[in-house]
Amino acid sequence: MNQAARARLRTVLDPRSVAVIGASENPNKIGGRPLLYLQRFGFKGKVYPINPKRTEAQGYKAYPNLAALPETPEVAVIVVPGELAVEGVAECARSGVQVAIVMASGFGETSDPLARAWQQRIVELAHAGGMRVIGPNSQGLANFASGAVLSFSTMFLEAEPEDGPVAIVSQSGGMSVVPYGLLRSRGIGVRHIHATGNDCDVTAAELASVVAEEPDLKLLLLYLESVRDAAPLAQMARVAHRRGLPVIALKAGRTAAGQEAARSHTGALANEDRVVDAFFEQHGIWRARDMGELVHATELYLRGWQPRGRRLVAVSNSGAVCVMTADAASACGMPMAQLSSETRSALAGILPSFATTTNPIDVTAALLTNSRLFSDILPVLSRDPAADAFLIGIPVAGQGYDVDAFARDSAAVTDQTGKPLVVSAPQPSIAAKFRDAGLPVFATESEAVAALNQLLLHLDLMRAAVHPGSGTRMPSEQVGGTPRMMNEADSLALLNKSGVPVVEHRLCRTSDEAAQALAAFGGPVVAKGCSADLVHKSELGVVRLNLRTEQDMHGAFADIERRLREHGSQLDGVLVQRMATGRRELMIGARLDPVFGPVVVVGDGGKYVEAMPDVELLLPPFDAAAVRRALSRLRIAPLLGGVRGEPAMDIDAFTVAVVAVGRLMADDQSKVINLDINPVVVGSAGEGCRAVDAVVYTIA
Amino acid sequence: MNQAARARLRTVLDPRSVAVIGASENPNKIGGRPLLYLQRFGFKGKVYPINPKRTEAQGYKAYPNLAALPETPEVAVIVVPGELAVEGVAECARSGVQVAIVMASGFGETSDPLARAWQQRIVELAHAGGMRVIGPNSQGLANFASGAVLSFSTMFLEAEPEDGPVAIVSQSGGMSVVPYGLLRSRGIGVRHIHATGNDCDVTAAELASVVAEEPDLKLLLLYLESVRDAAPLAQMARVAHRRGLPVIALKAGRTAAGQEAARSHTGALANEDRVVDAFFEQHGIWRARDMGELVHATELYLRGWQPRGRRLVAVSNSGAVCVMTADAASACGMPMAQLSSETRSALAGILPSFATTTNPIDVTAALLTNSRLFSDILPVLSRDPAADAFLIGIPVAGQGYDVDAFARDSAAVTDQTGKPLVVSAPQPSIAAKFRDAGLPVFATESEAVAALNQLLLHLDLMRAAVHPGSGTRMPSEQVGGTPRMMNEADSLALLNKSGVPVVEHRLCRTSDEAAQALAAFGGPVVAKGCSADLVHKSELGVVRLNLRTEQDMHGAFADIERRLREHGSQLDGVLVQRMATGRRELMIGARLDPVFGPVVVVGDGGKYVEAMPDVELLLPPFDAAAVRRALSRLRIAPLLGGVRGEPAMDIDAFTVAVVAVGRLMADDQSKVINLDINPVVVGSAGEGCRAVDAVVYTIA
Repeated sequence: MNQAARARLRTVLDPRSVAVIGASENPNKIGGRPLLYLQRFGFKGKVYPINPKRTEAQGYKAYPNLAALPETPEVAVIVVPGELAVEGVAECARSGVQVAIVMASGFGETSDPLARAWQQRIVELAHAGGMRVIGPNSQGLANFASGAVLSFSTMFLEAEPEDGPVAIVSQSGGMSVVPYGLLRSRGIGVRHIHATGNDCDVTAAELASVVAEEPDLKLLLLYLESVRDAAPLAQMARVAHRRGLPVIALKAGRTAAGQEAARSHTGALANEDRVVDAFFEQHGIWRARDMGELVHATELYLRGWQPRGRRLVAVSNSGAVCVMTADAASACGMPMAQLSSETRSALAGILPSFATTTNPIDVTAALLTNSRLFSDILPVLSRDPAADAFLIGIPVAGQGYDVDAFARDSAAVTDQTGKPLVVSAPQPSIAAKFRDAGLPVFATESEAVAALNQLLLHLDLMRAAVHPGSGTRMPSEQVGGTPRMMNEADSLALLNKSGVPVVEHRLCRTSDEAAQALAAFGGPVVAKGCSADLVHKSELGVVRLNLRTEQDMHGAFADIERRLREHGSQLDGVLVQRMATGRRELMIGARLDPVFGPVVVVGDGGKYVEAMPDVELLLPPFDAAAVRRALSRLRIAPLLGGVRGEPAMDIDAFTVAVVAVGRLMADDQSKVINLDINPVVVGSAGEGCRAVDAVVYTIA
Repeated sequence: MNQAARARLRTVLDPRSVAVIGASENPNKIGGRPLLYLQRFGFKGKVYPINPKRTEAQGYKAYPNLAALPETPEVAVIVVPGELAVEGVAECARSGVQVAIVMASGFGETSDPLARAWQQRIVELAHAGGMRVIGPNSQGLANFASGAVLSFSTMFLEAEPEDGPVAIVSQSGGMSVVPYGLLRSRGIGVRHIHATGNDCDVTAAELASVVAEEPDLKLLLLYLESVRDAAPLAQMARVAHRRGLPVIALKAGRTAAGQEAARSHTGALANEDRVVDAFFEQHGIWRARDMGELVHATELYLRGWQPRGRRLVAVSNSGAVCVMTADAASACGMPMAQLSSETRSALAGILPSFATTTNPIDVTAALLTNSRLFSDILPVLSRDPAADAFLIGIPVAGQGYDVDAFARDSAAVTDQTGKPLVVSAPQPSIAAKFRDAGLPVFATESEAVAALNQLLLHLDLMRAAVHPGSGTRMPSEQVGGTPRMMNEADSLALLNKSGVPVVEHRLCRTSDEAAQALAAFGGPVVAKGCSADLVHKSELGVVRLNLRTEQDMHGAFADIERRLREHGSQLDGVLVQRMATGRRELMIGARLDPVFGPVVVVGDGGKYVEAMPDVELLLPPFDAAAVRRALSRLRIAPLLGGVRGEPAMDIDAFTVAVVAVGRLMADDQSKVINLDINPVVVGSAGEGCRAVDAVVYTIA
């Protein structure tokens, strides 16, 4: 979207005037709810109910149609069903309405061809009139800052709204208000709750990209069921990135079963889940696995903490909480901070003699008799430079404990250091006191650690995020051509030209040429039938390893020739290759995802790549550092670094090759749509790597 | 424990008389709380406060010492500190008290040698008098059926107790009442809440084993920080197994950091975590990873459901909930049930035309206008034999929805079919209605699926559980001897005798013998220096592969001899082996765990076993089925079955070898304490397997 388009879409968040086409007197009907909400939540603009059968609705003067209005409304909410909705859109588009929200359902989400055609017609009418359409099947939009609550959700009657620094944008109506309800029950204010429905024109991502501009927001939550176009999501991520706004996305349809449910219910396109992961990671978006995770760490984000490290200090009056906190932290890679000797001596002067001064700190049941233990040790701990974050665990307290002081002193730690502090307190009365002190409280230490870990990882992700511009090669540019497989010699040549080292080889048209190649390479060689018709060479028996003599070669050549002939495949020659030696067979693959564009896959190679995949995905453009991060997450990562006294492998050389493949795939001019290099044989550090087998597909 | 010992320990759960040594008038002191609780919670037995300074405490007549009492109390609670507590134990033991609970802390959990000696003295005094001791450092025991609440926990003032079918036994005081508080806040009654403290005599497992006998109990929860002796835990598991009582254990110290925290706080012994996992699995105990998981599925256990399958049917008024339910179920291996064509036609007659009849079932927003949709489709779904379990998801409801009917109709499904049904409902008002109908309700579909999955897996675990009798070889029997490494020839011979196939080999004392062996095997062979001094053969260069000629062999023999001599190792001969061929190198290892006894490890073999472990643990005794289950969980499992058109490997033969190792390790007479067979070369089905390298350690 350009600036003008963004401005037009922004209108829907705070319009000067709204028409409701199909307005109802009954506030419990879809056509009545928006009127109720606009009144109740303090909307300042004009409200025009449209209903030919009424002169008034819920106290507003009603009009028979748009033409009868004293002005053209900026926004229209269309509640009437089916064909009437299509007519409503036509009327709005003609009148110069900026944005229409179609609430009626029974369009593109059904399998009815007529209903689907109506949805298509809505898009055409809107575009012809320069209008944007949200929906159909939209539960509506709600902005509690402007009072523009153009929604029929029941939830705003169930959980009292309050303006706050969180925005929710969702394709699903239900999933827009479920996180709203969960956050409101924790007392968190939510400004935006938008449900876009079928996304026939305006997508959830586009709307989110406009919402993300609001300076007061501290957290943006998305629920997505399918991504049809990655560009608006990427633009949203750039907008959020520019102002440091964290974005968490719950993208459902993670599994085949979930995608099937989405397809059969809403016709949603299935996205490949690992590509979605890679896309979100590249753009600094945290992917929540479920509704719980979408809202779990909200309080931490709202504090605006910017921690730089992962070393945790934990304090509890229970040794068991200390143990379980260390377990939980360790399991997610957060080390317990090693306290300085100054800190430890200071602690020794405060704590009872039988308490230890190692982190996690168990102040023991002595806290019951001396509530000052907390206030005395917290300042000491907060001064230790090894402490990056804090967890306070109070599993049990009651009479005799000065919980108000614990809460106040805990809050002082984060207020003075700016470092994050989370609380674990299962007792509601204790939790309430810490919450009143402005601290994030969880029922268990595991949940507190999980929230902290999410914040730390997400901030790292945001720092490392890449926001490719609009020049990136997108799959749409490639549609329409005919895919063509290159033979292996051409594949290797193309890769080599692109910067991927390949094994020494020669394409031989005759048996004599092949024998000469063997002599030239001077060692055991491999001979492979080379043909652009043939994918599974080894299964056809046209790969011969370890050929040493001229005689071997003549026999192999004749045999390969015969087999290809019998199989009916074109013989482009026999590829004679030096036998590659190295430490490990890795692989590099690449393809164009229909939605997300170029995807590069790296990992362990060999013949069991499908049966036991150990791979990571990278979305171009990426640099060597991103490749290294991906490789470090492989199961075989320890081997790459060298184990059992072995030297490290030449990861530098392999990384250069992966970056070259990324560049090739991202290049606007490239015709390559798919490639598979397996194995890439990698030697020890300094020995390089070489592509041995490769196939490249291009599009004409 | 024998029957008499069990009966004596049982006394503490419902004593006829209790003395409190160090009784206090102040109900907020440790010595005052038990008096308060005994009165408040309806204890029917006699209560004797012991305090030489008082004649009365909280309305009870007080006595100066045990001797002054009109009878010997069955149970004594000792609140006085340090040496006074030791004297109290002596007095109790002399008087014939059955069980004493020592609440005072500052004993074995400290690093003070005097305090630790006191604890040892307590054990000696008790044993001399035939008394059992719980504690020291015990928060006490609470039984809300008998009113025997011998505890000083503050929590019973914070959360009103109610008798119920759950028991909690914990080493930690805090972790006994945290799950209590979490369950009570969900309205679940809890009968037993016991905190055993330092376990100097009675262990948490022993107490749990007596608690587990109670017929009304439906769930037993354990919190353990360290296991010093596996036998009482095994006995507890047998008791629970006999009456089908599910046991869930939270064993903290899962990670190195957690174990370090436990050690520095309470001196807890570190257990190897994977062995703990294997032990719990063998005994049908579900291991909770954290406090949340310990209590998460309680409502499901209390229903007593006995589902037989994992196929889920989900119904929601939100398509998004359907998608996320399918995602969550699929991610934990619960397939969505394939509904029969009868069911689907029946659904088609009920649901709106735009709804689909595939599972998960989205009844759509039409539920708002027709609340009968639910009551109409649920009976149809519950009749489908493919449905093993149900999830009802109501993300949003309110005015216009007949939620009472939804809850009633949902409850009818499980009441009539006996199949489990869980509910996902984030809105508290909706959740309350389903809860009132007796159904387990969770805030999100992920949590509901996780609870259901836990119940299903746990019931499977209970069905497959093995409860070895007391004849099992335990590590304690082995302590004291001197470990001795066998040379490879002896190792292979012992293994072969025990039923493990080994590669064809010959131990040769001279170079000529070795050359003869080569000739006899008639192919390329391996020569290895054989010595009981030498673990890392290959690093010393005394392994020679692929020897083909007599000359090769003479050279190799001389070289091996020289290297061993230079290294100062005894040469027991040169082991000449046929080169083993096969499909994959697997491994079998075994050792005696200091707490849990024999442990067998199986998995992928080769030189990267440590760097990239892909192994499973098995605790003897185990059968072939258990080995197959373990192998099916390996990462390489697909390879074992054959991929890419390859035949399956000879898993039958490998399983026989693993069972043989299990038998060898479990044998009371066996002197083997450790063995490592890597690789075991496995061929295709029918080709067998052969141990190639092996080392066995025995104890004299």
